[in-house]
Amino acid sequence: MRIKLLFAALLLGTSSVLAQEMNSLMFRAGVKSPELKNDSITFRLVAPKARKVSVSASWLGYNPNNLQLTQQRDGIWSVTIPQPDPELYTYTFVVDGVSLLDPSNVQVQRDGSRYMNALLVPGDYADNYAECSKPGNVEHVWYYSAENQMTRRMYVYTPYGYDKNKKTKYPVLYLLHGGGGDEDAWSTLGRTCQIMDNLIAQGKAEPMLVVMPNGNPNQYAAQTLGIPVKQDVKQYASGFDNYSSLVADIVPYIEKNYNVIKNRSGRSVAGLSMGGGQSFFIAFRNIDTFSSVGIFSSGLIGASAIGGAPFDAEAHFPGMYSNPAKYNKFNVIYLSCGEQDNRIDGMLDFKKKLDEKAYKGVVWEQYPGGHEWKVWRRNLASFVQLIFKK
Amino acid sequence: MRIKLLFAALLLGTSSVLAQEMNSLMFRAGVKSPELKNDSITFRLVAPKARKVSVSASWLGYNPNNLQLTQQRDGIWSVTIPQPDPELYTYTFVVDGVSLLDPSNVQVQRDGSRYMNALLVPGDYADNYAECSKPGNVEHVWYYSAENQMTRRMYVYTPYGYDKNKKTKYPVLYLLHGGGGDEDAWSTLGRTCQIMDNLIAQGKAEPMLVVMPNGNPNQYAAQTLGIPVKQDVKQYASGFDNYSSLVADIVPYIEKNYNVIKNRSGRSVAGLSMGGGQSFFIAFRNIDTFSSVGIFSSGLIGASAIGGAPFDAEAHFPGMYSNPAKYNKFNVIYLSCGEQDNRIDGMLDFKKKLDEKAYKGVVWEQYPGGHEWKVWRRNLASFVQLIFKK
Repeated sequence: MRIKLLFAALLLGTSSVLAQEMNSLMFRAGVKSPELKNDSITFRLVAPKARKVSVSASWLGYNPNNLQLTQQRDGIWSVTIPQPDPELYTYTFVVDGVSLLDPSNVQVQRDGSRYMNALLVPGDYADNYAECSKPGNVEHVWYYSAENQMTRRMYVYTPYGYDKNKKTKYPVLYLLHGGGGDEDAWSTLGRTCQIMDNLIAQGKAEPMLVVMPNGNPNQYAAQTLGIPVKQDVKQYASGFDNYSSLVADIVPYIEKNYNVIKNRSGRSVAGLSMGGGQSFFIAFRNIDTFSSVGIFSSGLIGASAIGGAPFDAEAHFPGMYSNPAKYNKFNVIYLSCGEQDNRIDGMLDFKKKLDEKAYKGVVWEQYPGGHEWKVWRRNLASFVQLIFKK
Repeated sequence: MRIKLLFAALLLGTSSVLAQEMNSLMFRAGVKSPELKNDSITFRLVAPKARKVSVSASWLGYNPNNLQLTQQRDGIWSVTIPQPDPELYTYTFVVDGVSLLDPSNVQVQRDGSRYMNALLVPGDYADNYAECSKPGNVEHVWYYSAENQMTRRMYVYTPYGYDKNKKTKYPVLYLLHGGGGDEDAWSTLGRTCQIMDNLIAQGKAEPMLVVMPNGNPNQYAAQTLGIPVKQDVKQYASGFDNYSSLVADIVPYIEKNYNVIKNRSGRSVAGLSMGGGQSFFIAFRNIDTFSSVGIFSSGLIGASAIGGAPFDAEAHFPGMYSNPAKYNKFNVIYLSCGEQDNRIDGMLDFKKKLDEKAYKGVVWEQYPGGHEWKVWRRNLASFVQLIFKK
């Protein structure tokens, strides 16, 4: 603080001006939370009038009874626990039954319409979720979808050093979110930019673009922009098989506006949950367009265990099992599910059927976790190391 | 809801799968808040165990005593008030002394390290803050600052239809945030993209790029990214006169990578508070680089009323008053301050001195409000209508 006040004095000959000009960033008083120290983590909250303060934490099943704070002094509540394993977690405080963000933690993520604090416990694969010294850019791009008759938003990640005039063109991964998500989900909850930056910097993934569109046919863009949804949602009438706009509108836009490979060797599609089902349809319907596909925790494929009809790929694409030569053209068919996600049985069954028909490039991975981002971030990190290999 | 369930049934032959896949967006139960209806606005919060629930609202001085909710039924608290005048406001709930976001309102803004809900009361000039049907893109761009020896982030707005190959090149506004802000502030709190989209679509402003860098010399990027600040902050030793990197690093980067005008006729610089002081120095030090300057609510210029030494432009730039021909070269010198901001006297005094020396292009505006975004959004909207006129 001494240095900062000196610094203030230098700036204008008085600290009071600076204190007003540089308000919250440097001079804001407050408790430290969360504090990671050695192997422990401490949460703190100022709540003098509270009767009960808890943390609702992703690694404790969001059950606030699992992590309660006690009041220390001056209305400051705290709790110290051992750090959970390296991972990007989310949490909120719960004070007398209402949820609130940790006012001392500026790391915040939105999941649908819910805001939660983020907490990165570093180490192991979670280091890929931290900022990299060679960061790529991300663009919020509006494009016209003739298919949907809407001007819609997508995010486009370009890798570090992306050169629009480079002779060697870049491949593109089209990456689809789940139900309740939008074009923002993969870059925030999914940590896509950091994962790509780190893996590319380490030479583990090829430099590629990642295009993250909005796969909800009634949304122009994420609901944070406040644009009313489109009432005409007929596109869903054909089920998960709805996202023809990706190939009709988005691929041409990207190939017109970016320095990318314009054939199947440079195109991949992957998605989680709803986006996994969309990826299945998009890839198998357009085998000449994409060279690989990633399907993470698809409810379409894992439907039987969660109350749906058993998944039958042959019914959707006649020949998939009876004449596999027709469809056995992908370099990579990556399938994955969380071990505690009940979609896993259906996903495994699909994998088994593809193996029985000797589909090439089939990769199966499973990770501890439910239907959650912890699993999908690892899926992304694995998948991008498999595709566009030279 | 009937339609949505039908819709679900169509999707997978069962609604239970869809309900899991499309969780929060469509099926989330909850109260509506805030609800704008006719001329009223209703806030609602579920808090069965609370003893006191208030709204801390920007238009009521953030004083929670000014807007208290009462418990209706089932633990739902609410209050209905007349709508304030059209404007983009911020608020939080306060429950028994702790602040929390409105869980029913997905519109959230960050001011420094504080998160608040946003509330747009439409009408009048506030309609410029709503999404436009012809939106421009925004890029999160990392560039190398040789001056700071850091890889830093800035936001770059490109107007609707921006064409990187267009023969007629675009002008550029460099737009600087205040103390406690960062490269994210102007596009979120300042609503820059929406303001630009609307004014350009209405033909009131020329299509232009808006570059929003991070003016804190110790930050690589907004603190939301979790990158530790740079310890060496020597750049501040020369006071507000610190942002030479804008001209040394950022202008060349933009002119290399975008389709922009590369002379002073196509460059403008403006900023609020700390960024207003920076804009003063940048513009007058580089009169051959910029053709206009906007200074909003500068604490440097308004210093005397907030505890600083009286502002003396002549001391910074010998000749400013004694030999005005040397500096009287801008098409626009836009000066503004909130009427309840104590910086206004110093700002007005500077305006008076420029008039006395017959500086051309001097524009003064004042708006009801303190040292706040309500004023700066209007400053931006006015300023961009004055610059780059053909």
